[in-house]
Amino acid sequence: MARVYNFSAGPAVLPEPVLEQAASEMLDWHGTGMSVMEMSHRGKSFVSIAEQAEAALRELLAVPDNYKVLFLQGGATAQFAAVPLNLLGDASSVDYLNSGSWSKKAIAEAKNYTSVNVVAEGGNTDPMTIPPQAEWALDPNAAYLHYCANETITGVELHEPPQVGDVPLVSDMSSTFLSRPIDVSRYGVIYAGAQKNFGPAGLTVVIVRDDLLDRASHQTPSVWHNQRQAEADSMLNTPATYSWYIAGLVFQWLQAEGGLSAMGERNQRKAARLYAAIDASDFYRNPVAPEVRSLMNVPFVLADDQLDGQFLDEAAKAGLHTLKGHRSVGGMRASIYNAMPEAGVDALIDFMADFERRHG
Amino acid sequence: MARVYNFSAGPAVLPEPVLEQAASEMLDWHGTGMSVMEMSHRGKSFVSIAEQAEAALRELLAVPDNYKVLFLQGGATAQFAAVPLNLLGDASSVDYLNSGSWSKKAIAEAKNYTSVNVVAEGGNTDPMTIPPQAEWALDPNAAYLHYCANETITGVELHEPPQVGDVPLVSDMSSTFLSRPIDVSRYGVIYAGAQKNFGPAGLTVVIVRDDLLDRASHQTPSVWHNQRQAEADSMLNTPATYSWYIAGLVFQWLQAEGGLSAMGERNQRKAARLYAAIDASDFYRNPVAPEVRSLMNVPFVLADDQLDGQFLDEAAKAGLHTLKGHRSVGGMRASIYNAMPEAGVDALIDFMADFERRHG
Repeated sequence: MARVYNFSAGPAVLPEPVLEQAASEMLDWHGTGMSVMEMSHRGKSFVSIAEQAEAALRELLAVPDNYKVLFLQGGATAQFAAVPLNLLGDASSVDYLNSGSWSKKAIAEAKNYTSVNVVAEGGNTDPMTIPPQAEWALDPNAAYLHYCANETITGVELHEPPQVGDVPLVSDMSSTFLSRPIDVSRYGVIYAGAQKNFGPAGLTVVIVRDDLLDRASHQTPSVWHNQRQAEADSMLNTPATYSWYIAGLVFQWLQAEGGLSAMGERNQRKAARLYAAIDASDFYRNPVAPEVRSLMNVPFVLADDQLDGQFLDEAAKAGLHTLKGHRSVGGMRASIYNAMPEAGVDALIDFMADFERRHG
Repeated sequence: MARVYNFSAGPAVLPEPVLEQAASEMLDWHGTGMSVMEMSHRGKSFVSIAEQAEAALRELLAVPDNYKVLFLQGGATAQFAAVPLNLLGDASSVDYLNSGSWSKKAIAEAKNYTSVNVVAEGGNTDPMTIPPQAEWALDPNAAYLHYCANETITGVELHEPPQVGDVPLVSDMSSTFLSRPIDVSRYGVIYAGAQKNFGPAGLTVVIVRDDLLDRASHQTPSVWHNQRQAEADSMLNTPATYSWYIAGLVFQWLQAEGGLSAMGERNQRKAARLYAAIDASDFYRNPVAPEVRSLMNVPFVLADDQLDGQFLDEAAKAGLHTLKGHRSVGGMRASIYNAMPEAGVDALIDFMADFERRHG
């Protein structure tokens, strides 16, 4: 078996030790005679798996005690509806930063439930930028400010959370979650789909501050009702048990690798080397202003897009897979999440240099 | 490794060959060098997995061409909200049969969106019954009639779909789906969580007739919007890819076992033997009228409930697990889904007889 370097933007590469452990205990978890996939979510085996996963996640992120951690279904796109349903309360409007494709989707969905004030537009210039916060049209009466921490498609990332005073800050962190330490206390709600940095698609972690649990609309579907799910330990209905278990194995792997500080340093090194290689070349180009470049998703275009197909074919033959850019932007994109080893990034850089030598 | 007989009501036992195949290709699916869990849902490998799963499901159930098959997230509880949101249209009321706990939850959730007419109440007598349809207060102007085909908790099952004329029939089939042939053309919408008969928790199949796709409320969350998901081949957002893959393996296993006719006969035999053993004894009792007894979930009580703990302990020692009844009803419950072999049911019957000899 030859594992490849998989640069998919999500679902994405997972740590090999996690997959090995999952395979080895697929038919019999810890002598129970059953797969985790077959366990009642109410039984003590699965409850211990669930509790240990939450404890590990809380430890990794240093989640304060006044936050609930929920393991839900539906992905970030589900939260695009669940966020306004849970948080609008008595307010009449919500603030959104538009920094790219995922922001736009979140805004469109929120408009089904309330009036949306777009505080600023980014990601639409060349090079792509996000306007400085001094230029944002923030509403002090907004129910919350929502932003997408990292636009997976264009590779545009806001590296520091906005300053919003008393307005709750809500962040879609799907593609940066657990890639470095963050200060959870700066946020009202953080949510992230698992399929970038911590597990299989179909699991969504929601971290919500206690004081924001009491304002859900009565039309909030039960499965996304943060307060009711918090009271039920995320088991108001049957959760995505196997995905929760895999996420727990990824959390253990992160702890064994030194936690989020070590992971953040590794991710900084990986991104710095790849951007440096791109910037040093006239053959490749990244269209994002350096101060908002993503550490996770590195899009780049070839000077001659006629070579795109050949680049992808030869890369695949060299064991470098899923490098095609999103259909909405074209070109290439290398997603270099936690589980992408530094050797994978180095192999990509070497291949890019070789390809340029032969075709540049 | 000793596999046990797992009578969990869900998540539940899966076919051993499915788990073996999943384990063997966990790190490398068909020479791609990656796990199915790591694959982009847009790539040709996963698209082929998804398409083959849908084709197998359509073949097993003989789904007519004018029905869409969706692979969504959220479980049946999500559909409790999604059904009225998708189907209410211009109508002002919906019909629900109340046959037990899951019906009640569906009714409570629907009330968040519209007026609910409960056509009849069942499952609340001793023995438990469902009133005959002649006594139901059906509304010919209802947007739909919803019923739960099988109440997993009490083991009360409606064996034939109701006659509803032109009113679309909507069925929560979570715990009977794929356990026998059905006539899909009788239904407007069928939905089922995977974790009983066909896969990991976190996947929900929705089968919807084409003419019902055009009436969704604008407040329907995108991830549950049947029309938009149908247009996107269930990939409006990232689907639960790994669960979809496991479901596809289960569908292949069902085909190899002879399809739903063979499965239905096997399930009939299993249930008939277990109910016969219970009815032949004064020590055990099933509290459901024979004409509405579930083929999938067989609850039973011991004449002396002081023996419940001992029964469960000794059963576990004999390799018979997760037999405890739902916390809301007590006693025992044996769930005997497709993947429970006939030998497992025979082992349970033998154990019950032995326990009665020693304690009766």
